[in-house]
Amino acid sequence: MEKADYIIRGDYVLPMDEGHTVIKDGAVVVRGKSIIDVCEGKDISKKYSSKNIIGGENRAVLPGLINTHTHAAMVYFRGMADDLPLKEWLEKHIWPAESKWLSPEFVSDATELACLEMLKAGITTYSDMYFFEDASGRAAKKIGMRAVLGAGIVDFPTISGKNADEYLGKAEKFIEKWKKDELITPCIAPHSIYACGPETLTKVKKIAGKYNVPIHIHVSEARWEVEEIEKKYDKRPVEHLENLGFLDGCMVAAHCVWVNEKEIEALAKHKVGVSHCIESNLKLGSGIAPVPAMLRAGIMVAFGTDGAASNNDLNILSEMSTAAKVHKTVSGDPTALDAKTALLMATRWGAEVLGLGEITGSLEKGKAADIIIMNLDRPHLTPLYDIYSHIVYSSMASDVETVFVNGKFVVDNRKLCSVDEGEIISKARAWSRKIR
Amino acid sequence: MEKADYIIRGDYVLPMDEGHTVIKDGAVVVRGKSIIDVCEGKDISKKYSSKNIIGGENRAVLPGLINTHTHAAMVYFRGMADDLPLKEWLEKHIWPAESKWLSPEFVSDATELACLEMLKAGITTYSDMYFFEDASGRAAKKIGMRAVLGAGIVDFPTISGKNADEYLGKAEKFIEKWKKDELITPCIAPHSIYACGPETLTKVKKIAGKYNVPIHIHVSEARWEVEEIEKKYDKRPVEHLENLGFLDGCMVAAHCVWVNEKEIEALAKHKVGVSHCIESNLKLGSGIAPVPAMLRAGIMVAFGTDGAASNNDLNILSEMSTAAKVHKTVSGDPTALDAKTALLMATRWGAEVLGLGEITGSLEKGKAADIIIMNLDRPHLTPLYDIYSHIVYSSMASDVETVFVNGKFVVDNRKLCSVDEGEIISKARAWSRKIR
Repeated sequence: MEKADYIIRGDYVLPMDEGHTVIKDGAVVVRGKSIIDVCEGKDISKKYSSKNIIGGENRAVLPGLINTHTHAAMVYFRGMADDLPLKEWLEKHIWPAESKWLSPEFVSDATELACLEMLKAGITTYSDMYFFEDASGRAAKKIGMRAVLGAGIVDFPTISGKNADEYLGKAEKFIEKWKKDELITPCIAPHSIYACGPETLTKVKKIAGKYNVPIHIHVSEARWEVEEIEKKYDKRPVEHLENLGFLDGCMVAAHCVWVNEKEIEALAKHKVGVSHCIESNLKLGSGIAPVPAMLRAGIMVAFGTDGAASNNDLNILSEMSTAAKVHKTVSGDPTALDAKTALLMATRWGAEVLGLGEITGSLEKGKAADIIIMNLDRPHLTPLYDIYSHIVYSSMASDVETVFVNGKFVVDNRKLCSVDEGEIISKARAWSRKIR
Repeated sequence: MEKADYIIRGDYVLPMDEGHTVIKDGAVVVRGKSIIDVCEGKDISKKYSSKNIIGGENRAVLPGLINTHTHAAMVYFRGMADDLPLKEWLEKHIWPAESKWLSPEFVSDATELACLEMLKAGITTYSDMYFFEDASGRAAKKIGMRAVLGAGIVDFPTISGKNADEYLGKAEKFIEKWKKDELITPCIAPHSIYACGPETLTKVKKIAGKYNVPIHIHVSEARWEVEEIEKKYDKRPVEHLENLGFLDGCMVAAHCVWVNEKEIEALAKHKVGVSHCIESNLKLGSGIAPVPAMLRAGIMVAFGTDGAASNNDLNILSEMSTAAKVHKTVSGDPTALDAKTALLMATRWGAEVLGLGEITGSLEKGKAADIIIMNLDRPHLTPLYDIYSHIVYSSMASDVETVFVNGKFVVDNRKLCSVDEGEIISKARAWSRKIR
């Protein structure tokens, strides 16, 4: 009889392997930070003993969801300006607010709120690009969330630096500082091709190679970007990146709304991971990424919420639902992006896109115990014929009951364990009274 | 000092008038079945006394949401078949299941579950088209929900009748039986133009006129309908209806995905209400209705969930969010379908489309007390700059805390008051074990 820290039971355990296995009446066994077994539940008591047996009837157990693209601290600007054209939204609302308010303290407080929201929506790992990422890393660790963090690099002065070399220097220091952390993976995050010239991108690539960290970049979110890049470099954005030798290694390309067939081929060839941010793209009127074509080409596509200022929530369950529905109509094919594929994108593929495929994204022996329990005992999840369908099309973030990150209870029956939720919310309200 | 049954307080009271008024620290006063006042909260205790003062800090108070098109009892087929082309979905899954299982008992039990789900999502009124609507009416009344119900009329035999005349006869009886009910409004519901020939539609129109009840019909949901009707009648669907004199009076046209400019003009001219079912349309790959053009033409557009078998939930909050986002990208205009318009469509306009504009859909003195309280004290609703934005883009059904229908407490702190929720869910599971 082996001792375990937790035995997590569920009517449905979804390991999220490529075969879409469903273990009915299953169990996930956790010791320390790791999953030590994923198996049927009926004989579990003969094999493992634990004081903590949780989950059970009317519960689904699955790997934590992965948010591959966000600007977590922007949660403090949620709903500040909506229903506006991108340019007006940015120039009249977001940028002035950022340049007035951003500071390490702002980022730290706001990231706590974002982590709280994400964890309660079943997200255990997120990938961030923003300012003052050191503060962000401290907040994520304090809350107990896994994160891939990269400070934005641009060619012009902002609140956090004067020029590319300053940002690059800070990025190297940031990587060195966090490189060995268990929960935080540093990455390097050039903002975009239009904000970073070839020289900066080449330096970024060098640093990524030197430290073996992922690159996180915006690619072709809006149509004007493509036009601007074509005018400047006589190449489409992905071709430009390919030409610079930028596409190899672990890279997360966020958005990829305006990519043509040739660019899709190049992304597939170089194994670039794409972060699909459907709700933000729809809300800003940016367009709809050709996800079914990317999937056919073999690109690993995952989901991202983008910042809460343009979404307006940090909820991968609803990204899945929206994406699976929208792509059916846009492609004219109701079989496009089915529920099983959507959930794979939100879990296993999300982790692989971030270079964390060995660590998280599925329930497998040896992986970190990043696990969520969903409560299926709800009117809107009744009756139940197909667990994948229910998670993707019918569930809500509030159905996430319990969340483990790295073997630690971080949400217990919808309550954050690490920090008082009321405090996080009070701080947010205090900031918003100033910002308003 | 006047006595009141309930004083409902909220940091934000949204009466849902056309001026988008927000009463900060407001109150809604209820006596019996009606709203007797909507006012600022600060002096309320000088004017009214009540033992029941509810809501308050961090709460938004708004009229109950209106679901203008559903097939409530199909909730028992939720997730039974997904990610399939419409024809295969209908012919291989839905129709066989319906012909095997439908009965008054099925419809009554399933409608209870649908009402439970809808009420907990803040929907206080729904408009239904299905079979055995008498059973549906009894269930809705038992749960305590307002409904507009119409038994489907077609030209061919189904589980509930042999031919059009039998359906029409039953429809008249149904109308006579329920005509004076306080919560249930009977309507007449010819399924569609392709399922009802001109003779049947003419008879439907006569009955609607005789009893002064609304007509509820599917119009141009899928592209093949338009082609079929054009081939048969040499007219597009809306022109065909106009030609039959069918468009005057209170009429709910569900879907209207494939309507051209001329048809939009005709719908506007005859004041036909449109039920926009964006999530079902997207999921079945049917297309995207030209809602911004309809709104510009002055058509009153409201939201419908359609049945849960093709959605897969009964949630108007998420319909609002999806529609407001999708239309921005489809129209290429990020100002299209803003949050205020979306919430108007989900409340006041929904009631008007159903012919219930005098009774419900807004918080006004003299209207029925159909009221919901939303809890804003949630991470995903923090911070708060714009209450409309939060309700449309960030809230979840689970934020609906309390629901009144016709002056009665039907959901109290997320618990149904009229019937034991566990019983409703148990019945659903028992049915699904048979159906599976």
